[in-house]
Amino acid sequence: MKTNEIFPKGQKATENFTGDTWVQMLTVDGRNFDAMSYNVTFAAGSRTDWHSHPGGQILYCITGEGRYQEKGKPAQRLKVGDVVEIKPDVVHWHGAAPDKEFVHLGISTQLSKGPATWYGAVTDEEYMVLDK
Amino acid sequence: MKTNEIFPKGQKATENFTGDTWVQMLTVDGRNFDAMSYNVTFAAGSRTDWHSHPGGQILYCITGEGRYQEKGKPAQRLKVGDVVEIKPDVVHWHGAAPDKEFVHLGISTQLSKGPATWYGAVTDEEYMVLDK
Repeated sequence: MKTNEIFPKGQKATENFTGDTWVQMLTVDGRNFDAMSYNVTFAAGSRTDWHSHPGGQILYCITGEGRYQEKGKPAQRLKVGDVVEIKPDVVHWHGAAPDKEFVHLGISTQLSKGPATWYGAVTDEEYMVLDK
Repeated sequence: MKTNEIFPKGQKATENFTGDTWVQMLTVDGRNFDAMSYNVTFAAGSRTDWHSHPGGQILYCITGEGRYQEKGKPAQRLKVGDVVEIKPDVVHWHGAAPDKEFVHLGISTQLSKGPATWYGAVTDEEYMVLDK
């Protein structure tokens, strides 16, 4: 079994991402858990737009190599086993390395605080800072 | 890479389990996320005691084969990729198959509703119902 086959790949995302990404919702019962969770597969070079979550988000890196950046801070490499705690209202993006696929499990916590806010695409210049 | 090496194995648990289990906390910041998360490795035959969570719990099956039972319902087999949504206050146990190691990621949601309540060990008779 390849590690990127733990959870289903799901459907191709149609907004809030640059490049090819696939999202499989894993749990959507906000009433009982005040959270939702999902498996996200990023093709090499793909990434979310800049965004923030009023209730926070936690990422669990499952396969490949990723990138993560909080607004105003340096971008970071993500490797398998890394866990990223994104506090409420912190503006950030996450995605794959330019040359490697990346899969993370994600959970949006404290869902009752409201939906994510989106701030537009991560430009190629912003995305490539770590890899120039 | 073996899939059971995604997250660290952590320390051997000393209470609330039967058999050898290892727990690695992954996130503990209840203030910012109202949740905590952990990787749990169950040796073949090991399992939690009966317990419930006032804020619910979600399990993500990563490696091997597990067992899950809610009080008053039949036990179920868990395989890689299964996601278990355990609603608030539902009394249950989870663990490995009798002959296979099992690893799950777990998240305790709505942590501010309070800690888990424990109801004692799952007996060998209760544990083996599915595997007789």
